[in-house]
Amino acid sequence: MSPIGPLLWRNLRVYKIYGANTDVGKTIVASILCNATRRLWKDEATAYLKPVSTGAEDEADDKSTLGSLLKVSLTVPYINIIRPSEQAISNEHILKSIYEFALERASAGKGWLFIETAGGIHSPSPSGTTQAELYTALRCPVLLVGDWKLGGISSTISAFESLRIRGYDVENILVFEDTDYGNSEYLKDYFQQHYGIMVTVLPMPPPRNSAYDKDEDEEFMLDYYSKKSEEKTVRDALNHLQTRHNDRIDALESMPAHAHTMIWYPFTQQKLLQPNDIVPIDSAHGSCFQTLLPEPSAISNKQSLLRPSLDGSASWWTQGLGHGNSSLTLAAAYAAGRYGHVMFAGMIHEPALKLAALMLDSINNPRLSRVFFSDNGSTGMEVAIKMALRASRVRYGWSSNTKIAILGLKGSYHGDTIGTMDCAEPNTYNEKVEWYEGRGVWLEYPQIQCVAGEWQVLVPCEIGTSRTRSFSHLSEVFDLEKRTARGEHSFYEAYILSTLRKHLDEGRKFGALILEPVVLGAGGMVLIDPLFQQTLVQVVRQNASLFGSNKQPDSAKHDKEWWGLPVIFDEVFTGIYRLGRPTAASFLGLHPDISVHAKLLTGGLVPLCVTLASESIFNAFASEEKSDALLHGHSYTAHPVGCQVAIESLNQLNSMEKAGAWNWAKSNGWLQGGYEIHTSVTNLRSQVWSIWPLSLVNWISLQTSRVSGVWAVGSILAIHLHAADGSGYTSTAAEGLRKRLLSGAKVESGVSWNIHSRVLGNVLYIMGSQVTTEREVGDISDLLRTGLEEQL
Amino acid sequence: MSPIGPLLWRNLRVYKIYGANTDVGKTIVASILCNATRRLWKDEATAYLKPVSTGAEDEADDKSTLGSLLKVSLTVPYINIIRPSEQAISNEHILKSIYEFALERASAGKGWLFIETAGGIHSPSPSGTTQAELYTALRCPVLLVGDWKLGGISSTISAFESLRIRGYDVENILVFEDTDYGNSEYLKDYFQQHYGIMVTVLPMPPPRNSAYDKDEDEEFMLDYYSKKSEEKTVRDALNHLQTRHNDRIDALESMPAHAHTMIWYPFTQQKLLQPNDIVPIDSAHGSCFQTLLPEPSAISNKQSLLRPSLDGSASWWTQGLGHGNSSLTLAAAYAAGRYGHVMFAGMIHEPALKLAALMLDSINNPRLSRVFFSDNGSTGMEVAIKMALRASRVRYGWSSNTKIAILGLKGSYHGDTIGTMDCAEPNTYNEKVEWYEGRGVWLEYPQIQCVAGEWQVLVPCEIGTSRTRSFSHLSEVFDLEKRTARGEHSFYEAYILSTLRKHLDEGRKFGALILEPVVLGAGGMVLIDPLFQQTLVQVVRQNASLFGSNKQPDSAKHDKEWWGLPVIFDEVFTGIYRLGRPTAASFLGLHPDISVHAKLLTGGLVPLCVTLASESIFNAFASEEKSDALLHGHSYTAHPVGCQVAIESLNQLNSMEKAGAWNWAKSNGWLQGGYEIHTSVTNLRSQVWSIWPLSLVNWISLQTSRVSGVWAVGSILAIHLHAADGSGYTSTAAEGLRKRLLSGAKVESGVSWNIHSRVLGNVLYIMGSQVTTEREVGDISDLLRTGLEEQL
Repeated sequence: MSPIGPLLWRNLRVYKIYGANTDVGKTIVASILCNATRRLWKDEATAYLKPVSTGAEDEADDKSTLGSLLKVSLTVPYINIIRPSEQAISNEHILKSIYEFALERASAGKGWLFIETAGGIHSPSPSGTTQAELYTALRCPVLLVGDWKLGGISSTISAFESLRIRGYDVENILVFEDTDYGNSEYLKDYFQQHYGIMVTVLPMPPPRNSAYDKDEDEEFMLDYYSKKSEEKTVRDALNHLQTRHNDRIDALESMPAHAHTMIWYPFTQQKLLQPNDIVPIDSAHGSCFQTLLPEPSAISNKQSLLRPSLDGSASWWTQGLGHGNSSLTLAAAYAAGRYGHVMFAGMIHEPALKLAALMLDSINNPRLSRVFFSDNGSTGMEVAIKMALRASRVRYGWSSNTKIAILGLKGSYHGDTIGTMDCAEPNTYNEKVEWYEGRGVWLEYPQIQCVAGEWQVLVPCEIGTSRTRSFSHLSEVFDLEKRTARGEHSFYEAYILSTLRKHLDEGRKFGALILEPVVLGAGGMVLIDPLFQQTLVQVVRQNASLFGSNKQPDSAKHDKEWWGLPVIFDEVFTGIYRLGRPTAASFLGLHPDISVHAKLLTGGLVPLCVTLASESIFNAFASEEKSDALLHGHSYTAHPVGCQVAIESLNQLNSMEKAGAWNWAKSNGWLQGGYEIHTSVTNLRSQVWSIWPLSLVNWISLQTSRVSGVWAVGSILAIHLHAADGSGYTSTAAEGLRKRLLSGAKVESGVSWNIHSRVLGNVLYIMGSQVTTEREVGDISDLLRTGLEEQL
Repeated sequence: MSPIGPLLWRNLRVYKIYGANTDVGKTIVASILCNATRRLWKDEATAYLKPVSTGAEDEADDKSTLGSLLKVSLTVPYINIIRPSEQAISNEHILKSIYEFALERASAGKGWLFIETAGGIHSPSPSGTTQAELYTALRCPVLLVGDWKLGGISSTISAFESLRIRGYDVENILVFEDTDYGNSEYLKDYFQQHYGIMVTVLPMPPPRNSAYDKDEDEEFMLDYYSKKSEEKTVRDALNHLQTRHNDRIDALESMPAHAHTMIWYPFTQQKLLQPNDIVPIDSAHGSCFQTLLPEPSAISNKQSLLRPSLDGSASWWTQGLGHGNSSLTLAAAYAAGRYGHVMFAGMIHEPALKLAALMLDSINNPRLSRVFFSDNGSTGMEVAIKMALRASRVRYGWSSNTKIAILGLKGSYHGDTIGTMDCAEPNTYNEKVEWYEGRGVWLEYPQIQCVAGEWQVLVPCEIGTSRTRSFSHLSEVFDLEKRTARGEHSFYEAYILSTLRKHLDEGRKFGALILEPVVLGAGGMVLIDPLFQQTLVQVVRQNASLFGSNKQPDSAKHDKEWWGLPVIFDEVFTGIYRLGRPTAASFLGLHPDISVHAKLLTGGLVPLCVTLASESIFNAFASEEKSDALLHGHSYTAHPVGCQVAIESLNQLNSMEKAGAWNWAKSNGWLQGGYEIHTSVTNLRSQVWSIWPLSLVNWISLQTSRVSGVWAVGSILAIHLHAADGSGYTSTAAEGLRKRLLSGAKVESGVSWNIHSRVLGNVLYIMGSQVTTEREVGDISDLLRTGLEEQL
C-alpha cells in the first residue's frame, strides 16, 4: 500500500505551480505569491517547496531568483528535496518527501504551501515519469503559469489540457502581461468562456540583464516584488484560492448528506443507511480511492482529511489497469474526438472492428466468429439468451409459444434485468421482484475451499453420496485430465444425467446451458470444481438426442457446431484476466458456443459488453424476413469511446501476460510440485495461481474458529466465515471484519490508509486489479491478518 | 450542409504539419520534406500550402526560409491563402480554400501535399478558433514538429495530447537533434513505448545569423537541404507516410468485408445484408459522419474517397452537441483522469451528485427527488418498472405472486431487454422473442399529422366515433387549456374509463401507467395528441379507487404523492431538448412519478441513464430488511465519465435555451398567431416549434400522392408515406426515398454530400442535433424536396 495520500488539511492551503512552458516565470510567480501571503495573512506561515530541479543551472537560477525573495521574507523556507546528483531517486521517494514536508507544515499551524514543479508540465522527473503524471496521487489543486511569449497561447492551452485530462483542478492561471502578443487577453477570454477559470494577469518583471551588476538585478526584483505583492489582482487571486480551498472541504463534507436525500442507491436498503455510512470519494488513483476520513467535523485542523482507501472490490469487479490511468483516458478521448458516438446498424468504424477482431483472437475459442455489442453484462446476457433460445427453437422445431427453460447451477447470477433474473433460481436478489419468474432447472454443484490448510472439494449430498475429497495443491484439483483418468467425473455424470432425464421426462424443454465458469460471483464468491462443469458441458453435448429429436447438426462441422444445447458462458466477471487468464473457460478445456464479456473489458473505465457467438448460432436468425433477425440494440451500441478503451485495455493486458508481469505472484507458492510457469496456452490448463500468496491463504484457512474456508484465484481472495445466521446474502457474519478493514491501519509516516471491501453475506472478498503490486498485496495481507486475529 | 469533406484521395498524400511550439522549425521541416519528395518521387508533383500566417513577420520569414527551398525546387507552389490584412476571414472560407487547393492538386495527378499550420497547435486562427480545433473536419493525418529547445519534451507531449484528444492521427514526429537537452532521445522512446509512433530525428540546421550576409545564410540552408533530403531518415519517414496513406485507404475499403464476417449487427437481417450495404465511417464531425463513397474500387485516383454524410438519425437519437465535440471530450477525459470508474454503492463522488442535482433542477418536476443511475434506456426502464410495481403492490397489499400488468399505449416501445419488451404490446420487435410475454393493456390513441397543409388529429374508431379534427396551427393542438375548455377531452375520458373498467372488472391488476409523452419513437415516429395523454393521466389519478381499495395516500401530501397508479414517463427519447424542451412532460402540463432519461443525457457521447422518482415511490422500498431494497445495479452504475459528460451537456443545452439559441428556428413559421417566443417556463405549454421550417412541413404534406402525413417537433421531422405493403415496421415504402437521400447531392465546389437517414417501415424521419444550423437545415430541405419530387 502506498502511504501517499492526497495533500488536504484544513490548516494548509497547498497549491502546486506548473508552468505552461519552461522559463515562463514560475519562480517569480511563486515569489510574488509567497510575499503576498506573508503580508496579507500575517499570523500564518508561508512555505515554498521545489521538490525537483531540472539541473544544476536551474537550481542556481532558482536560488538567485529566490534570493530576492528571501531577503524580503526570511520566514519562507526554501526546500529542494532532490538535487541533480540524486537523479536515480524513485517517484515514491519524491512523493513521500513532499507529503512529509506538507504534513510538517500543516502540523505547525495555519498557512500556505506553494510547490513548484520543474520545467514544463510534461518535463521528465528524475525517474523519467513526466511531472504531470508524477504528482496525480497528491490531488493538489494547480496554479498554471501561462506562457506570455510568442506561441504562448498555444502552449498554455495545451499544457492546461494535459493537466485537465489527468483530473487536475486548475484553480487559477497566472500570466505576465505582454504588450507584443496580447496572450493574456486571449487567455482570459478563453478560460473564462470554456472553463470559468480565473486568469490573473501580472505586470511583467524587469528584464534580467547579465550586463547589469548582480546586486542591481536583485534590487530591481526586490522593488518589483514589494509593489506587486500589494496589488489588488494578487490579493484577489489569493482570496479566490482561499475560497476554493474551503469550498473543496465543504463540498467533501456535505456530499454524504446531499447524497442521502437525492441518490437512490443500487443494492442498498436506504432505511438502514445513515449519511455517515456514505463515503465521499475525492478522486481515485491506481489501486486506491482517495476518501474523506470518517467524522470529518471531528478532525483537527492539523490532521489530513483524505486518505488512500484500497478499492478492495475492484469497484464492483471492474478494475484492471488502475484508476486514473492516462493511457485509458487518452484512448477514450481520442475516440471521442474522432467520432463522438456514431450509430452502428449498417455502418462500421475502426474501433468496433478492431475490438471485434482482438476479442475473437484473445479468447482463443475456435467456435466463435461473431461479435454483438451491448452496454453491460445484463444486456449482454439478455442477448446471449435470445441467441440461444432461438437457435434451440429453430433446430428442434418448437412452436413460438413453447415454454423454454434454461439449465444452470444453483446460486448463478447473470444480471439485474428481468430476463437475466429469470435465469437464476429464486433467491434474495429476485424473490421480491414483481415480474421475476425463474425459468430453469438449477443443479447442485461441488465447491472448492482451502480448509485448515487442505484443499477440499465439498460434494453436497444431492450429488451421489456427500463427501469431501482432499488435495494437497489447488493445481491438482484443476488437473482435469488426471482426475478424469482416475474416474472422478463419473458420479458427477450420473447425477447430471439422472437429473436431466427426470425433467425431460416431465416434458420440459431446455433452450440453453448457462454457466459462470469456475467462479460464481454474486452468488456468494464460490469456487466450483471445474471437473463438474466440464462434465456438465460434455454430458449436454454428448447426449444431444435428449433435448430434441429432429434436425441434428451436420457431424462434419462437429467442432464448430452446437450440440444438445447452446452452451453460454457468462464470463462477464470471470473473463479477461480476472482469474489470471483471458478466459475462465480455458480452465475447463472446452469452448462455449456463446461467451459474454464485460467489466474488465474496458480495463475498468466505461460500460461496454460483447456477446460472442458461433456461426451456427448466428445462422439460426438467417431468413428472408427482417422480423427473424435479432431485433436487439441499444442507442450507444459499439460506442467508439468504449471500443477504443477496450482495445487499449486488452492490448495492455495481453502484453503484460506475454511479458510475465505476474510471475512474482505465480512464484508465491502457487506454481510448484510439477506445476511450473508455462506461457504456452496448451499447457495452461492446470496452472492456477493468484496474486494472493499461498501462504496467506493457508494461514487464513487455519483460523478455523472464524473461517470455514478460503480460496484465491487470479486477483480474487474469498474468505468464507462461520455464520450463526446462515450463509446467505442477508447474513451479517462478515460485517465485523469488513468494518475492521475499513477502520484501517497507520503506517510509520503517520498517514493512515484503509481497505474498502465488500461482503456477500458471510463471505468477505478482496479483489485486486491487474496492476496491484506485490507490495500492496503484502500490506493488505498484514492488515487482513491483524483484522482476523483481533476478531478471534 | 458544409461542403467541406475530409482530404483523402488515392492520388494525393496530404499531411498537415503542426508545431509543438512556435519557432521549432515547421517551415524547415516542410522544406526538407518537399525537397525529398521531389527527388524521390520524380514523376510526381509536390505542393506546399500555408493557409494562414500569424502575421506579416511570420510570412516574410516563411518566404525567406522557403526562398532557399524555391531555388532548388521551383515546381513546388508556395501558397498562403490568408494574408494578415484579411484577419476577419471565416473558418469556413479557410477550410474551403484548402479543400479546393487540395482538390486541384489531386486532379492534376499523383503527388504530395504538405500543409503547414501557423504557430503552435493552439495558436488562434483569424476567427479566434485555435488551429487544432479549426482543421478537425479535414481529418488530415498530422506531422508534428517536436520542440528541441529547453522544455521541449513537455511542449511536444502536451501538443501531441491536444491533437490526439481531437481525434487526429499523428503519423510521425520530427524533431531536430539537440546536443544540450537530449529531447529527441527521450521523445523517441516515449512515443514508441506509449503510442508506437515513429520519431524522426533530423540534424540541426545551421544557425540563422542576421550578422551574416543574407545570401550566405541562404547558401548554408541550400547546402543543408541538399544533404538532408537525401538522408536515409527522411526517406524512411516518407516511405512510412506513403505506407500509412495506402494503409488508411485499404483499411477503409476492407472494413465492410471484415465487418460482414465478424459483426453481428443490431436490428439487422444479415442474410439480406451485403458487404456493399455497410458504410465505413472514417470519423465524424459536427452534424456529419465522414464516410467512404460507395464502390470505392471504382473511384478514380482523382476523386475524393470520403464525403460528409449528414447523421440524419442523430445516431439513433443520441446526438445533441455534435460529433467530435471537444468540450464533451475534455469532460470525459477529466473524469477518467480524476477517478476512472469508482463503485457507487455506499459511496458518493462529485460528478454523480452534481448530475443528480442538475437533473432534478432541469426537469422542473416538484414530485421527483430521487435519482437512480443505470447504463441505458432499457435498464433505466427496467428500474422504473421495478419501482412502480413494488409501490403498487405495497400500497394495494397484493401478494408477491399476484400477476401485475401495466397500462400503456399501443405502439409503445421501451427497450430491448425482456422486462421492457414485456411492457409493449405484441409487435414485430418482440413477437418472435422466445421469452416475450406482453404484460399489459394497451390503449388506442389519436395521432397528429399535417395532411395536405392542414394539422389534423386523427381519432381511431375505437375511441368513441372515428373522426378527424382540423387545426390551423400545431400550437392550437397543443393548447390544452383551450381545448379542455371546449370539452374536447370528454370523449377521450369516456373511452379510457370504459376500457379500464372492462379490464378491472375481469380482475386484472395494474401496477403502472407507462407513457412516452407526445411522441412514440420506435413505434413508428408518431405524434400523439397531448390532450389524450393528459386525459389518460388525469383519469388514472382521479379514479384511484379503481385500482385497489385499501391504503389510499395521505391527501395532505397530494401534490407529491402518487394516486391510482405510479405514472412512468419514458423520456429516454423525448426528453432533454429532443422536442425543444427539457421534458416532453411539460407539453402535457403534468408531472410523472417516475421519469427516465438517457440518449441526449450525455449530449450523444457515452451510455448513461437516470431514472428519477418521487419520495413516495422511494419509500415503498423502505424496511428493516435488506431484501426489500431495490436490488438492482450495474457495475458501472453512475460511472464518473458519463456523469461528467452529462453535466457538461446539460449545462450547455440549458445555456443555449436561455440564450435563445433556437430563436431562428422558432421564428421559421412556428411561433405566430398569438404563439410568441416565451422564455418563461409557465408560458411554455402551448409553444411548439421545430428546427424544420413550417413551410417545409407544409410543402411535404402537399405531396399527397406519396405522403400520407408529416409532422415536425423539436429536431424531428417524420414523413409518413403511403404504403402498399401496410404501415408496419416491415414495410419497404420509405426505402426509395432513403436511398435517394443516401445517393446525395453535389454542390458547386464539386464535393458531394449525402444524408444517412433511417426508416421505420413506411416512415422516413430526419433528426437533427441541437447544434444543427439553419444553413444545414436549408441544404437538407433542398435535397428532401428534390428526393420527394423525383419519386413522385
